[in-house]
Amino acid sequence: MIYQKVALIGLGLIASSMAHAMRGHVGQIVGHAKSAETRATALEIGLCDQVFATAAEAVAGADLVVLAVPVGAMGALAAEIAPHLAPGCTVTDVGSVKQAVVAAVAPHLPEGVHFIPGHPMAGTEYSGPRSGFATLFVNRWWLLTPGDTPRAAVDQLTLLLKAMGAKVNEMTPEHHDQVVAVVSHAPHLIAYTMVGVADHLAQVSNSEVIEYSASGFRDFTRIAASDPTMWRDVFLTNKDAVLDILGRFAEELFVLQRAIRMGDGDHLFDYFTRTRAIRRGIIEAGQDTAAPDFGRAVSK
Amino acid sequence: MIYQKVALIGLGLIASSMAHAMRGHVGQIVGHAKSAETRATALEIGLCDQVFATAAEAVAGADLVVLAVPVGAMGALAAEIAPHLAPGCTVTDVGSVKQAVVAAVAPHLPEGVHFIPGHPMAGTEYSGPRSGFATLFVNRWWLLTPGDTPRAAVDQLTLLLKAMGAKVNEMTPEHHDQVVAVVSHAPHLIAYTMVGVADHLAQVSNSEVIEYSASGFRDFTRIAASDPTMWRDVFLTNKDAVLDILGRFAEELFVLQRAIRMGDGDHLFDYFTRTRAIRRGIIEAGQDTAAPDFGRAVSK
Repeated sequence: MIYQKVALIGLGLIASSMAHAMRGHVGQIVGHAKSAETRATALEIGLCDQVFATAAEAVAGADLVVLAVPVGAMGALAAEIAPHLAPGCTVTDVGSVKQAVVAAVAPHLPEGVHFIPGHPMAGTEYSGPRSGFATLFVNRWWLLTPGDTPRAAVDQLTLLLKAMGAKVNEMTPEHHDQVVAVVSHAPHLIAYTMVGVADHLAQVSNSEVIEYSASGFRDFTRIAASDPTMWRDVFLTNKDAVLDILGRFAEELFVLQRAIRMGDGDHLFDYFTRTRAIRRGIIEAGQDTAAPDFGRAVSK
Repeated sequence: MIYQKVALIGLGLIASSMAHAMRGHVGQIVGHAKSAETRATALEIGLCDQVFATAAEAVAGADLVVLAVPVGAMGALAAEIAPHLAPGCTVTDVGSVKQAVVAAVAPHLPEGVHFIPGHPMAGTEYSGPRSGFATLFVNRWWLLTPGDTPRAAVDQLTLLLKAMGAKVNEMTPEHHDQVVAVVSHAPHLIAYTMVGVADHLAQVSNSEVIEYSASGFRDFTRIAASDPTMWRDVFLTNKDAVLDILGRFAEELFVLQRAIRMGDGDHLFDYFTRTRAIRRGIIEAGQDTAAPDFGRAVSK
């Protein structure tokens, strides 16, 4: 067993997937969620061996504590559990932003507790304790920003993450936040925006948008269906990096918009040819499938 | 047999998928592609019973002619085949834009030939004769803009499209172009733009972008990997509708950008909650799967 007792605080998509994925690699799994209904579900479907009405009770005696709540709730949670943490335990989180989490959580944690901020780069548009599945992290990156945490504690957590199928890498919180602004946060905001535009149109009805959503818009709606609380916190806490990318995006979009207006087909063709090469790189890096129907089963 | 002899002009993703999907529902399938290599492949993998070096030869004696070339090439193709079309035959196309195709093709076609512009709302990011598969159109919309074409000809084509698994609807070319600007064209341009932004960043390397591409960016790259020629022509020929949507998109994006800058979490939360509802509508309309891993097989 890599850890004897794991406390999952928050029992949404990520924590419930972790519970499924870490079974057999850890001893006891206990949990806490604010909602009594979520706690009951977690027991009913066997996510947790025990649930507690408070986070403070849940972390008692745990050698691994996972903070799996929205980024905006991390600071208050850390303050609440700090007096109850076992000496020498490891605390990690699964927030999509790292600088803000470090700033909110680290000041509360007592000496001798090992804080290893983390970010599993995996997800679906579903949330809640029933949305988890054991293979969510398989072949996905789990980024850690351990700072000067002792090597042994980082290695132990890495062992568990790899046992759940993830690939693990370490970087600084600053660099992490820049990377995710590009590959995840800005694309999400853009998808939300496009879905909102469609919702406002007078000449095309919402039911037409829904009926005729081809691959382009359909993929956007999938992104734009993610958990609103989580994403609100992401944008508020990774503000600078996201605004930098959105500024660049607007400039780039205007150049393409102008090419369309001017009828500059060569510019468009060259641009689209370059973006295609990036896609090839992603398939070669194993981050997506090349199956011609995107691996989706045909729904009749 | 719904048609005796079908001529597929252009043998890319759509035409090759049609060839697979219409087997058993039509008599002979003949084809033409500009590239000798494509023609050889089409014979080799059994897409076509016969291929011809010119479109004029291919359409001779066909009762259904399918124009499956980029939108920008439709006019010249129509001029070339017009003198060789069999009296009473049906001509359809698969272009993503309809007003421009009608304007380019209709003037060339002789009296007595039935022109039924069409648009299968299905695709992948792959192209070429080997990219086709028989189930591409299953449960997808195939929009027709038949104008005043005789009902019998439209019904016959509809029968074939439904036999290939598609759902068929009719509308005007003008309305079609507005609908696809929202659900397909603008999302594609936006995805291209975001992928281009990532490519230009100095502080995050391309290999990092590729390695860490989570669902957000990964979905964008899939969209942005589509055929450059096809998309260039789409944007040049559906210019007005696309520019209208992009203008709205920029306005909407700026409002969200401002909410991030001002720290207006309520605005973001409300916006993200509304977009989530649209996604639910799409799943209920059967246009995508609700499987939590998006139906993708896990790639190890």
